Amino acid sequence: MALSHDDQAIYDLASETFAPMLRALSSILDKGAAHARKQNLAPTALPAERLAPDMYTLAKQVQLACSNARECVEQLTGHPPKWFDENETTFDELKTHIATTIDYLAAIPKSSFDGAAKKEISIPLPDGDLAIVMNGTQFVRDWGIAHFYFHVVTAYDILRHNGVDIGKRDYLARVATYIRKRS
Amino acid sequence: MALSHDDQAIYDLASETFAPMLRALSSILDKGAAHARKQNLAPTALPAERLAPDMYTLAKQVQLACSNARECVEQLTGHPPKWFDENETTFDELKTHIATTIDYLAAIPKSSFDGAAKKEISIPLPDGDLAIVMNGTQFVRDWGIAHFYFHVVTAYDILRHNGVDIGKRDYLARVATYIRKRS
Repeated sequence: MALSHDDQAIYDLASETFAPMLRALSSILDKGAAHARKQNLAPTALPAERLAPDMYTLAKQVQLACSNARECVEQLTGHPPKWFDENETTFDELKTHIATTIDYLAAIPKSSFDGAAKKEISIPLPDGDLAIVMNGTQFVRDWGIAHFYFHVVTAYDILRHNGVDIGKRDYLARVATYIRKRS
Repeated sequence: MALSHDDQAIYDLASETFAPMLRALSSILDKGAAHARKQNLAPTALPAERLAPDMYTLAKQVQLACSNARECVEQLTGHPPKWFDENETTFDELKTHIATTIDYLAAIPKSSFDGAAKKEISIPLPDGDLAIVMNGTQFVRDWGIAHFYFHVVTAYDILRHNGVDIGKRDYLARVATYIRKRS
């Protein structure tokens, strides 16, 4: 079954954003782990770092990038939500969390995006009788991806702030697949 | 003239990401400016802050969010590149830079996205004869928007790291337009 143009656009946007950026994030964590070893830091030290006392830790930013990607796809497809424990404290554990998330996303069939564009997705606000109501296109673009990048970039920023040698090349690792000889 | 589905998807993704997020960034800078006044900081103090000695300042992150949005749309549409000076050092100046960028983007006609999806966009790498070669869909998603969010979120993170009272509600300000009574 072929998806409609709008559903296909959502599928492409979600599947070509979440998994590739999570793979980049996983490699960024490798550089964090290497830095920690070189500096003789405890394996739990950097994952507990944050940019402000009332901001989330690096570990939580990674977990939130993963859960935002999962919840976005679950909402778009109607796939039953799956709970992932979020008790990781080391780079290795966080990398496993990312890998499990990538596998989970890959197992959700493309066909389940049928109807995603026209789907009404409603996020109730904490107080009163108001909700954020979006169609699938608005939801993936303005909610899912916006949240997702927030946590990926903040994870990057925490490591960078703590002296880890990472750069745009790590963040944009996925574009390496587009490198060709100049024509 | 109606755009093709793929060109329309690119237009929607670019126009519904860049300008709304730049407006959110502008309001975030307002909160930075209010914080600076309350703390009796010089108007140039926070814009000169950064998260690491070899990272860009807040001012530069804002300028890069703007230039990435402009260059992305220029590449997609073939609109002649326009140079913007980047000499702002205060919140007011940065807000003007953002407002000028939003006006500039709004003045590029939707019809100029005709053919954007199939366009081959090539970014030469510094050394050798290699280039990153993408079609318009890949370029807006994997290059333009990825870069753009990097700088918006890092600007946010710099302010948050410096004690400015901002939250997800400021970052995701645009979803306020989707709030309705729960059905």
